[in-house]
Amino acid sequence: MLLLFLLVVFTPVNALWPIPRTLSTGTAALTIADGFSIDIHGIEHAPSDLKNAVSRTRHYIQEDKLGRLVVGRGPGQGVSLGDAPRLSKLVLRLVDTNQTAATAQTRVPSISEITALPVEQRDESYRLDIPSDGSDAVLVANTTLGLLRGLTTFSQIWYQHGEWTYTVEAPFKIIDEPYYKWRGLLLDTARNYFPVADIKRTLDAMSWTKINMFHWHVVDSQSFPLVLPEVPELSSQGAYSSEQQYSTAELDDIVAYAAARGIDVMLEIDTPGHTAAVHHSHPEYVACFEAAPWTSYANEPPAGQLRLTEPEVVRFTQKLFKAAIKHTPGKYFSTGGDEINLRCYAEDPVIQTSLNSTGQTLLQALATFTKETHQVLLENEKIPVVWEEMVLEHGDLHLDNDTVVLVWISSANAKSVAEAGHKIVHAPNDYFYLDCGHGIWVGNFTNGNSWCDPFKSWQKAYSFDPTANLTSTEATLVLGGQQLLWAEQSDPSNMDSIIWPRAAASAELFWTGPIHPNGGPLDGTEALPRLHDLRYRFVRRGVNAVALQPEYCALRPHACDLV
Amino acid sequence: MLLLFLLVVFTPVNALWPIPRTLSTGTAALTIADGFSIDIHGIEHAPSDLKNAVSRTRHYIQEDKLGRLVVGRGPGQGVSLGDAPRLSKLVLRLVDTNQTAATAQTRVPSISEITALPVEQRDESYRLDIPSDGSDAVLVANTTLGLLRGLTTFSQIWYQHGEWTYTVEAPFKIIDEPYYKWRGLLLDTARNYFPVADIKRTLDAMSWTKINMFHWHVVDSQSFPLVLPEVPELSSQGAYSSEQQYSTAELDDIVAYAAARGIDVMLEIDTPGHTAAVHHSHPEYVACFEAAPWTSYANEPPAGQLRLTEPEVVRFTQKLFKAAIKHTPGKYFSTGGDEINLRCYAEDPVIQTSLNSTGQTLLQALATFTKETHQVLLENEKIPVVWEEMVLEHGDLHLDNDTVVLVWISSANAKSVAEAGHKIVHAPNDYFYLDCGHGIWVGNFTNGNSWCDPFKSWQKAYSFDPTANLTSTEATLVLGGQQLLWAEQSDPSNMDSIIWPRAAASAELFWTGPIHPNGGPLDGTEALPRLHDLRYRFVRRGVNAVALQPEYCALRPHACDLV
Repeated sequence: MLLLFLLVVFTPVNALWPIPRTLSTGTAALTIADGFSIDIHGIEHAPSDLKNAVSRTRHYIQEDKLGRLVVGRGPGQGVSLGDAPRLSKLVLRLVDTNQTAATAQTRVPSISEITALPVEQRDESYRLDIPSDGSDAVLVANTTLGLLRGLTTFSQIWYQHGEWTYTVEAPFKIIDEPYYKWRGLLLDTARNYFPVADIKRTLDAMSWTKINMFHWHVVDSQSFPLVLPEVPELSSQGAYSSEQQYSTAELDDIVAYAAARGIDVMLEIDTPGHTAAVHHSHPEYVACFEAAPWTSYANEPPAGQLRLTEPEVVRFTQKLFKAAIKHTPGKYFSTGGDEINLRCYAEDPVIQTSLNSTGQTLLQALATFTKETHQVLLENEKIPVVWEEMVLEHGDLHLDNDTVVLVWISSANAKSVAEAGHKIVHAPNDYFYLDCGHGIWVGNFTNGNSWCDPFKSWQKAYSFDPTANLTSTEATLVLGGQQLLWAEQSDPSNMDSIIWPRAAASAELFWTGPIHPNGGPLDGTEALPRLHDLRYRFVRRGVNAVALQPEYCALRPHACDLV
Repeated sequence: MLLLFLLVVFTPVNALWPIPRTLSTGTAALTIADGFSIDIHGIEHAPSDLKNAVSRTRHYIQEDKLGRLVVGRGPGQGVSLGDAPRLSKLVLRLVDTNQTAATAQTRVPSISEITALPVEQRDESYRLDIPSDGSDAVLVANTTLGLLRGLTTFSQIWYQHGEWTYTVEAPFKIIDEPYYKWRGLLLDTARNYFPVADIKRTLDAMSWTKINMFHWHVVDSQSFPLVLPEVPELSSQGAYSSEQQYSTAELDDIVAYAAARGIDVMLEIDTPGHTAAVHHSHPEYVACFEAAPWTSYANEPPAGQLRLTEPEVVRFTQKLFKAAIKHTPGKYFSTGGDEINLRCYAEDPVIQTSLNSTGQTLLQALATFTKETHQVLLENEKIPVVWEEMVLEHGDLHLDNDTVVLVWISSANAKSVAEAGHKIVHAPNDYFYLDCGHGIWVGNFTNGNSWCDPFKSWQKAYSFDPTANLTSTEATLVLGGQQLLWAEQSDPSNMDSIIWPRAAASAELFWTGPIHPNGGPLDGTEALPRLHDLRYRFVRRGVNAVALQPEYCALRPHACDLV
C-alpha cells in the first residue's frame, strides 16, 4: 500500500515545466475537439497582447504535434482516444484583486504593462481546471500576466497521436504562482553579435518556461551594437559592422516582443570597466585602451575603462544611461561595475592628474562616479542593478538601498551581499554560467580549460540552493536568479543548444521553489523525464534544444539512471 | 632583417585549411573576372562527379561572399580592386602517372572510383598555380581525386568586397598531397538519430577540409536505424521509429554523395557488444538484454551482447556483415569489438552451456566468432577494422594481418598496437572525442563530469603527435586519425557546432603532417587566424560552425593571444 502510494506520487507528469506549485492530475484520456476555442470571458476590450497570447497558445496546441515520450510515442495500451471526452473550450477569466469578477467597463492592464512593474508587484498567479468529462476548462487569474502563465501551462499538456491532440492525465487541477519573483536569462551580444530573430526566438523559449527577465548585456569592450540616437557615434564607430547593430526600432521591437510574453528587458551598459568600445568614438574618455599585455589591464582583451574622474565622462555616462533607459519600460537597469582593473587607472596619466588635483582616492572617485551616474536612474524611477564587486570589493560606494546585486563570482558570496542588506539575484558562475567548459579561448593553450570549468550541467544548476547559508531574514532579500550566456565562444550557431534546455533548470528552481507539488524537495531524478519532454517540445517549436540522453533513455524514464 | 624575415614567414595565409604542404604566396591583388570559367582540359568525357565538383567550386566562389577577417572586412588600405588583374579561367589538367598528358581516349577513373581504393592507393596530390597577372590558373593532378582536392583549395582563396571577388595574396604556387592517408570523422547515429540531410551537410563540410573517411557508427544497443533488405527486422523492430531509419536507398545515396566528395564510407556494425537492439527482433541472439543494474553489464544502458558461442548467431552476424558491405564500395568495414562485458557472458546460461559443452573458454569462443565473422569480409575483399581491445585485451584473436586498429582508450596505447604489428588509426578520447565535457548524462549527478572530461578543445586536438613514442618502423603503421562524435548528448540540434571547426584540427594535422610549409612545426598560434577564416567560411556555406573567440579577436590576429 505504501509502495503503491509512492508510485502514484512519483509518477512523472511529463508535460509540465516549471512544475506548478499545486498540481493534481488524473488518469483519464481527453482530446481537443475540432473547433476548440479559447474564450476571453467578461473583458470587452481585451489587451492585444493577451489576444496574441491566446493565438499563440492555439497555434502551439495545433502545431506542436509532440508524441508522448514513451516507446511507440502513443497514448499507451488500452487507451481509445476516439472514445475519450473532447474538450471544446478553455475559458479565461480575470478576477480583480478583491475577488469580484472584473467588469467589462474596467480597463484591464495589459501583460506588457504588468511586466513593467517592479518584480514584487507583478501578479503571475493563476488557477487552471481541466475537467475530464469534456466540460469547459477554466483559467482564472488576477491579471493578464497570470492568464499568460496559465496559457503557457495549458499549452504543455497536449500530445499528438494520429489525428488526436490529447492528454491521458485528465482531470488537471492547478493552483500556481512563482516562488521567486526574478527568473532571468542573461545574453551577451557584445562578444559576438546575435541577430534580432535569434533574440526573439530565445524570448519565446524563455516565455515557455515562465522566465520573466531578459538581462541584456548588450555592449562591452569588444563591440557596441546598440544604436542610441543621443549617442549614435558609439555604435557607428563601435559596432562590428553596420549590419551588426540593434537599431532603435529593433530595440523597441525586442522590448515590446518580450513584454508581450511577460518578460522584462533589463539593459546592461557595463561601466566603468568593459568600455573599450567607447574609445572608437571618444578616445579621450577611455583609459588603457588596448594596453598590452591585456592580461595586466583587463580580464579579457581588449583593455579599456572609462576615465571616471573626468566630469565630461560622468556627463557622457549620464547621457548614455538616460538614452538607454528611455527604451525599457521596466524598472531595472544594470550599470555593471564588475572587473574594474586598478592598474589600468593607476597607470593612466589623466586619472592620476585628476586624483592628484582633487586629493581623492580612486575609490572615492568611483563612489562619486557611481553616485552621479546612478542619480540619472533614480530620477527616472529606475532601480540600479550592479555586479557584486560594487558591494564587496570597493568599500562603501553609498549605493541606493534599493540597488539589486548580481552575485556571480561565487555562490558563497550571496551571504556577504545579504549581510550588506542588498537585494540579491543569484547568477553564480559555479552553477549558472552556460559558457563554461568549452576550453580556454585566448590563443593556443593546448591543455587549457575554461576559467570556470567544468561545464555547468542542468543537474548542477538544478541543485542550486537559493537560501544556502542565509538567515531567514537574509533569505527575504533573494529576488531570484538567472542563468547566463557570455558569448566569447557562442553566437547563433550554438545559441539554442548551449542555452536549452539547461536554462530551464533555474526557471523551475525559481518558479516552483523548494517544495515540489508532491511534497518533497525538487529532485533531478524526478525532473529528468519532464525536462526531456520540454526539450522535445522545444524542438517541435523550432528551438534547437540539445539532446540530454540517447533517445532510448528519453523514451524510458529512469532506465538510464545510474543506480 | 631577421625580424622582417620572420614576419613574412609567419604572416598567416588566412584562407587555407588544411594548409598545403608546399605553398608560396605573394602580395598582389587579383579579382575573379565576370564570366570566370573552370575548364576541364583534355578529357573528352569527364566523370560526372568531377563535373559536379567543378560546379560546386564555381558556386562557392560566387556565393561564399566572405569578407576578409580584418577590421572593415575589406582588402586593406591602398588596394584598388578595380585596377587589379582579373582571373578569367582555371584550367584543370590530368597527367597520368607516367607524367604524360592523359589523352581524350583514356577512360578516366572518377573521384568515386578512386575513393573506393585502399587509402594507400589513392592519389590525392595536386599542383595549383594562380599567376598574379590574370593569366590562366592551372590545376594539375594525377587523378580526378587530386583535382577535387585542388578545387577545394582554390575555393578557399577568395573573399568578397563590394562587387569584387578577390585575393590580395597572388600569385599562389601550391604543391600538395596528404601526409597521412586516413583522415576521418566518426558519427554515431544510434544513440540519437541524424536525418540524411544533416549527414550530407556534414559530408560537404568534411570535404572542405579534405577529410576522406566517414566512419559511420550506424547502429548500437540503443537503436538500429540501418535498413538492410536481408535483415529488415533489425531496423523495423530496432529503430526508434519508422521515420528514424536509413533506407537502403538513403544509405546508397549517402555513400554516393560521400564518394563524389572524395570520402569513403566505412560502416561499423559493432559486435559482439553494443548489440542490445538486435534483441527486439531476435531475442534469442542476445545475452543480458536490459539486465539490471546496467552498470554491471554494459558501459552504458541498455546492456545486451550477441551470444557469440551460438552457430546461429555466427551465421546471423555473417549475413548482417554481408548485407552491409554490399552497400559500401570502399575497402573498410568495422566490426567494432569494443567494451565487451565479461560478466554479461559469465552469467548467461546459453553462453555457459555452450562453453561447457565445447570445453572452450570465452576468449577462445571470441576468437572463433571473430575469425568466422571476419571471414565474410576477407572473402569479399574488405579490410576488417576493429577497436583496440581486439588486439590489446583478449589475447591473440588471430586477426588478419591487414586488420586496421582504432586506438581510442588512450593515445598511449598506439604503441602497444604498433608493437603487435597492426596498422593504426588514431582515435584517442584524450584528444579527439568531440562529445567530452558536457556533464554526465546517466541521471541526476549534480557534480558529475563526463567520463572523458575535459572538453577536447581544437587546440588540444591540434597538439596531437601521431608518432609519439613510436619507432620509425612503427610510425609507418600509422594510417592517420579521426575525430569522433558519440551522440549520447548530440543530435541535429548541436551537430554543426559540436563538430566544427574542431574536427578541422585533425584534418590539418593528418593532411599537412608534422612540417608546416613555413618549415617549422604545426603551431596553434599560427593556425588560429586560419581556423577563424575556415569557420566564418563554413557559416557562409550553411554549416553552423561555432565561434572560437569574440569577433573582435577574429578580426585582429593574435590580439587575444595570452602572452
